[in-house]
Amino acid sequence: MRISELSTQAGVPVATIKYYLREKLLPEGERTSPTQASYGVAHVQRLGVIRALVDAGVGIAGVRKVVGVLEEPPANPYDLLGAANAAVTPVVAADIDLSAATALLERMGGDAEKCFPDQVAAVAHALAALDRAGFTVPERVMDAYLVHLSAIAEAELAATPDRSIEDAVRYVVLGTALVEPLILALRRVGEQVAASRRFGPSGG
Amino acid sequence: MRISELSTQAGVPVATIKYYLREKLLPEGERTSPTQASYGVAHVQRLGVIRALVDAGVGIAGVRKVVGVLEEPPANPYDLLGAANAAVTPVVAADIDLSAATALLERMGGDAEKCFPDQVAAVAHALAALDRAGFTVPERVMDAYLVHLSAIAEAELAATPDRSIEDAVRYVVLGTALVEPLILALRRVGEQVAASRRFGPSGG
Repeated sequence: MRISELSTQAGVPVATIKYYLREKLLPEGERTSPTQASYGVAHVQRLGVIRALVDAGVGIAGVRKVVGVLEEPPANPYDLLGAANAAVTPVVAADIDLSAATALLERMGGDAEKCFPDQVAAVAHALAALDRAGFTVPERVMDAYLVHLSAIAEAELAATPDRSIEDAVRYVVLGTALVEPLILALRRVGEQVAASRRFGPSGG
Repeated sequence: MRISELSTQAGVPVATIKYYLREKLLPEGERTSPTQASYGVAHVQRLGVIRALVDAGVGIAGVRKVVGVLEEPPANPYDLLGAANAAVTPVVAADIDLSAATALLERMGGDAEKCFPDQVAAVAHALAALDRAGFTVPERVMDAYLVHLSAIAEAELAATPDRSIEDAVRYVVLGTALVEPLILALRRVGEQVAASRRFGPSGG
């Protein structure tokens, strides 16, 4: 198909597609004349991934990393997960006290030294922000986070497709970044459902 | 204390404190002379809340809403939760198909009509972004999200402090917005722990 049809099918303006081509986020189409190229289903899919990441707030540098993982997926599944995670994880300053984060990880059954440093640092940063606000997560609530987020992670991992490496990368990358808004939205709705159950629908 | 000491205690520059005063996010201090005012512990706490929200990516308009809730908390706990949630929830376009989101809510034991529209719309937007990316959450994984996020929400609600309305507002507002980075970070770490358990630490 021509670029105009690709634009229609993917719902992405032609100028934006050209920008992605220049940035090498999207592979070149097959040249059919000096001024025209032909695009296929793979381009539509790739545009879907790019737009979804951009919509989820991932910057161009992050999109570039995801595209890199999609184009050259690592062979070991654990490294694959790490590369995919890293691609969509903002780099945070690592000069932070990791002890509280490390202790939480141990309670999840993990080992901070075997985890990717950015992920442990992200936990430490989240804890530090709560501290700065003078907010303490009640112990029973923290227990609930550790138990139920571990269970979610196990379910996600168990469902990783093993048909092809492309499928697995796609699942991990998109599942990590794009599912986050869903998880947060479901938690907030869940809080309302719980509140409505406890306090009745509305006062006024 | 003077503004300079407030600045030191709260770790916020004097110029920023003056900006918050002008924006009425921070109440005026007690005048001690035409050019000086005295600040107390309440100012330190309020600055902690403001900085934490700003650090968590909440804009000034959102901070203003949270401050409004803190200063005039609604009487009904359910409305309180809604106001607090709304204060830290970005407004999303509501012209979106809510049917899939409504169905998920029912599976959580909730009723979309009793939930705040922005929250239901947020679920719908998250689902639409996944759709656009061509990503389907496997059914068993979606089940895990619904079950475990409901359990997290119940635990959070059960721990809402009832000593004072200020405590409850503070808990709900900060607990909603500030805990999100922790939840996302713990999920990602949880995925690594699960992957390491399944595939061994690293290949290379």
